[in-house]
Amino acid sequence: MSSDRLIYLPLGGAGEIGMNAYVYGYGAPGKERLILVDLGVTFSDMDTSPGVDLIFPDISWLEQNKDRLEAIFITHGHEDHVGAVGHLWRRLGVPVYARAFTARLARHKMADRGNDENEVITVSPWPEVIKAGPFSVGFAPISHSIPESAGLVIDTPAGRVVHSGDFKLDETPIVGEPFDPEMWADIGKGGVQALICDSTNVFSAHPGRSEASVGPAIEKLVSAAPNMVVATTFASNVARVKTLAEAGERAGRSICLLGRAMRRMIEAAVETGILTSFPKVVSPEEAQAIPRENLMLLVTGSQGERRAASAQLARGKYNGLELKSGDLFLFSSKTIPGNERGVIRIMNQLSEIGVDVVDDDGGNYHVSGHANRPDLERLHDILNPKIVVPNHGEHRHLREHAKLASAAGRASVVAVNGTMVDISGEAPTVVDYVETGRTYLDGQVQIGALDGIVRDRIRMALNGHVVVTVVLDEDDEPLGDAWCELKGLPEIGSSNAALIEVLEEDLTQFLGRAKPKTLRDDDRLEEELRRIARNSCNSEIGKKPEVTVIVSRLSE
Amino acid sequence: MSSDRLIYLPLGGAGEIGMNAYVYGYGAPGKERLILVDLGVTFSDMDTSPGVDLIFPDISWLEQNKDRLEAIFITHGHEDHVGAVGHLWRRLGVPVYARAFTARLARHKMADRGNDENEVITVSPWPEVIKAGPFSVGFAPISHSIPESAGLVIDTPAGRVVHSGDFKLDETPIVGEPFDPEMWADIGKGGVQALICDSTNVFSAHPGRSEASVGPAIEKLVSAAPNMVVATTFASNVARVKTLAEAGERAGRSICLLGRAMRRMIEAAVETGILTSFPKVVSPEEAQAIPRENLMLLVTGSQGERRAASAQLARGKYNGLELKSGDLFLFSSKTIPGNERGVIRIMNQLSEIGVDVVDDDGGNYHVSGHANRPDLERLHDILNPKIVVPNHGEHRHLREHAKLASAAGRASVVAVNGTMVDISGEAPTVVDYVETGRTYLDGQVQIGALDGIVRDRIRMALNGHVVVTVVLDEDDEPLGDAWCELKGLPEIGSSNAALIEVLEEDLTQFLGRAKPKTLRDDDRLEEELRRIARNSCNSEIGKKPEVTVIVSRLSE
Repeated sequence: MSSDRLIYLPLGGAGEIGMNAYVYGYGAPGKERLILVDLGVTFSDMDTSPGVDLIFPDISWLEQNKDRLEAIFITHGHEDHVGAVGHLWRRLGVPVYARAFTARLARHKMADRGNDENEVITVSPWPEVIKAGPFSVGFAPISHSIPESAGLVIDTPAGRVVHSGDFKLDETPIVGEPFDPEMWADIGKGGVQALICDSTNVFSAHPGRSEASVGPAIEKLVSAAPNMVVATTFASNVARVKTLAEAGERAGRSICLLGRAMRRMIEAAVETGILTSFPKVVSPEEAQAIPRENLMLLVTGSQGERRAASAQLARGKYNGLELKSGDLFLFSSKTIPGNERGVIRIMNQLSEIGVDVVDDDGGNYHVSGHANRPDLERLHDILNPKIVVPNHGEHRHLREHAKLASAAGRASVVAVNGTMVDISGEAPTVVDYVETGRTYLDGQVQIGALDGIVRDRIRMALNGHVVVTVVLDEDDEPLGDAWCELKGLPEIGSSNAALIEVLEEDLTQFLGRAKPKTLRDDDRLEEELRRIARNSCNSEIGKKPEVTVIVSRLSE
Repeated sequence: MSSDRLIYLPLGGAGEIGMNAYVYGYGAPGKERLILVDLGVTFSDMDTSPGVDLIFPDISWLEQNKDRLEAIFITHGHEDHVGAVGHLWRRLGVPVYARAFTARLARHKMADRGNDENEVITVSPWPEVIKAGPFSVGFAPISHSIPESAGLVIDTPAGRVVHSGDFKLDETPIVGEPFDPEMWADIGKGGVQALICDSTNVFSAHPGRSEASVGPAIEKLVSAAPNMVVATTFASNVARVKTLAEAGERAGRSICLLGRAMRRMIEAAVETGILTSFPKVVSPEEAQAIPRENLMLLVTGSQGERRAASAQLARGKYNGLELKSGDLFLFSSKTIPGNERGVIRIMNQLSEIGVDVVDDDGGNYHVSGHANRPDLERLHDILNPKIVVPNHGEHRHLREHAKLASAAGRASVVAVNGTMVDISGEAPTVVDYVETGRTYLDGQVQIGALDGIVRDRIRMALNGHVVVTVVLDEDDEPLGDAWCELKGLPEIGSSNAALIEVLEEDLTQFLGRAKPKTLRDDDRLEEELRRIARNSCNSEIGKKPEVTVIVSRLSE
């Protein structure tokens, strides 16, 4: 028996949906050779990360061990799997492997951040494999809501691991390879040591529906519409965009793509040969000359993103095009939890214009890209792995998925980000916990989620900000009164006086009675002034604001 | 023909769900005598109103016309209908009428804000009526998700108006009066000029289900649970709390209520005689001594509110009680759009403890309190009004409801907040628009939503805040360097120098070359310093922060 072991270590994506990053290692403990699967982003929100541009997994552990890292493999082109490649690649510096469509998107991201596009290597699908240290990795096509998604077949000296990637079991996916049960059975035939498996839809009890199932309802809706039709979906869902466009074409409509992501995705799909037929599209300028009843716009912004085409159309003109009363707007999409307010805002703006909004209320116009509970069971059965480790899910999803696997007699474990699991044996064993977390892209700068920077911003948003300035002369005597500036606070407090005047008076009074020892001591003076400012605010307006104290000493 | 007219004017609740406030008037144009129906609140969120405690309708118009205001009528005790009574009553100063249970809640709110509880007058249900100027107002019992909800029968010289209030058609509501089709037919018999009608569920195609329908599923779930059971729902849904408690009692469990609102509501229901039977409850202290499998907690916080009992239990102990692996947690509630993140956070925390979470995924454990589309049609048919004006809904709900009414040949109109509609004639006519909006309760102070205060807080949250201080001597010459303080900004920029040092150097250089004219002019100096600070930040970190400039002049 060798003391070498096979480990799995999620750095992102386990215990959350987003910023996927999974490490596999093989070798002697602490000396495993490593590979990374996926390197994605999460999007910020006002509640927890205001002003943040993007969220990355904290890859410090991997960076510290980068001499052991062989390569990065990207399963598919969704932002939560490939979005951080451009931003973080330089810290890792190893080749990035992906299938053609995904590789094209990854190269864009590398170039956008000034990295060498050639670090991204296009691979052919399974049974072709890439050697990376002790690993041999194949990209087995699997259906999902983006073309060329792959499950990874990772062969190691400790046996075969299958990393499902995001997937569904779709035998009629419209674009890209159908789910191929025989190929997967073949992959499982020699025995699978561990399946690391997408958990997103573990709570959905019914078998998932095929992408092909939404076509007829969409076609019926579009052909019955009397005026202009606008439809939105994820731009990366090339199959859906095709279904929508073809429904428009069959209804005698010209198709116009709005939004950069929409055009870029279709372009990528055409250029990589994935999309062999797509209706002819017209430019926004050409569209303006076409009668509305002969026009269909396919637009970005299905999640209510403020700057996307759908939001801009809901607010007014976009690229010279404008919605009118009687037009139809189709959300061929599901609202991701947390995005409801943005989507509802757009629906109401459209309602104000008189546009008829159709959403996916009954599941007629959208299907999920993830395997439902029975589909998960089916993949488990096909591959028959010794161990199932759920990933790509919040804690509740991972836990439910682990229960599902255990109920079928498979060893399983809930391993959240940072949990290093030995998956060499009969059952998974947690062998270590490593520091993980989130890195924020804030403007152009990467900051730690726990650095306190964003915490201070949240506090200013909740409490407002008072700036107190005092000037002390060469003898450490106050020169004039204390000054305040308020930001984000009411002007008038409960005593009906200007808040700023009450504050300045309270602070100036304090300066007048402060002992020389206090006045000489910056820290103490600041602390006292802060305390007084907070208390005065609290009694005047019922809030304790953030306070910045600036002591200017002429003696310095 | 008289020139008197009957008007309807929503100040809140039309074009949104929340802060209901509807004015009716009768008399000569501009001299109508007025009544107000409901005076509710909306809750703040981090995206649009960080740090705000509560949101009220802007009642300035009503305050300016308060000499014409006769009375306030409250349809039921939900916060979005009664929540602002305590805060705003003083600005209106007229009697508040409500049924016993609602009146009890309203009195609490009056007392909380130092108003006289006796201004709230308890009324008996229809056919008793209150005279208020030209109006005669009756409280006709109608089923909803809180006891003693009432539709108002408002008789005027221009005919009868029915203000539905929030309602559903529930003939077995568990607590409170069932929907009584005969009474409503009787109310409609003499002709209804206008129905102002709840629009919340106009997009729900199936008839609504009765409160009684959830009992069996809840009972089955609770009786099968092996360990402790915790259930959450809206505290004001007294019928649901009763159903949950009785399911627990029948399963041999002691019932413990956690959360102030939960106890207060049950207390109010018992004291007003609405709740004639309720299982005996134990205190949290008593509960600690009871075996877990014989205990059921009914807790507040179904919407994921951070300070409520459910969130606190998910984080650890609450009132000495603690969840353990194998316990069951039931959300007998629906998540209101916008609250998903908070609810999901709790679900994941519970998952980490090993608690099994059951939510209302299939509609087994919760029913809505609002009339669905067929129920709306049924009420329209029963009352057969000339005019239907949809209220209590976002724009899309109002529009859909108006279409529904129009399709049945009734005159209708979409009237959002601020729209004054003449409803005297055959069809509604918009006669005026008045200024409305939102008032924020911020700490103890009421501020306008558009005052810029909250806008500044949002900007600080998104962009961070830089404070620049310069001191000028008696000759308007800079005394020393410019100083900066950063809040909510990264310390190190792209040039790898401390951001604060780059800023101070850029600003000090500017001071050195600034012309005397600029240095003497506060506004100009501030503007220049702000511009430089923003540009330096932008090139260092890719963000343009909020900047506060403080110029101290020793000459003053």
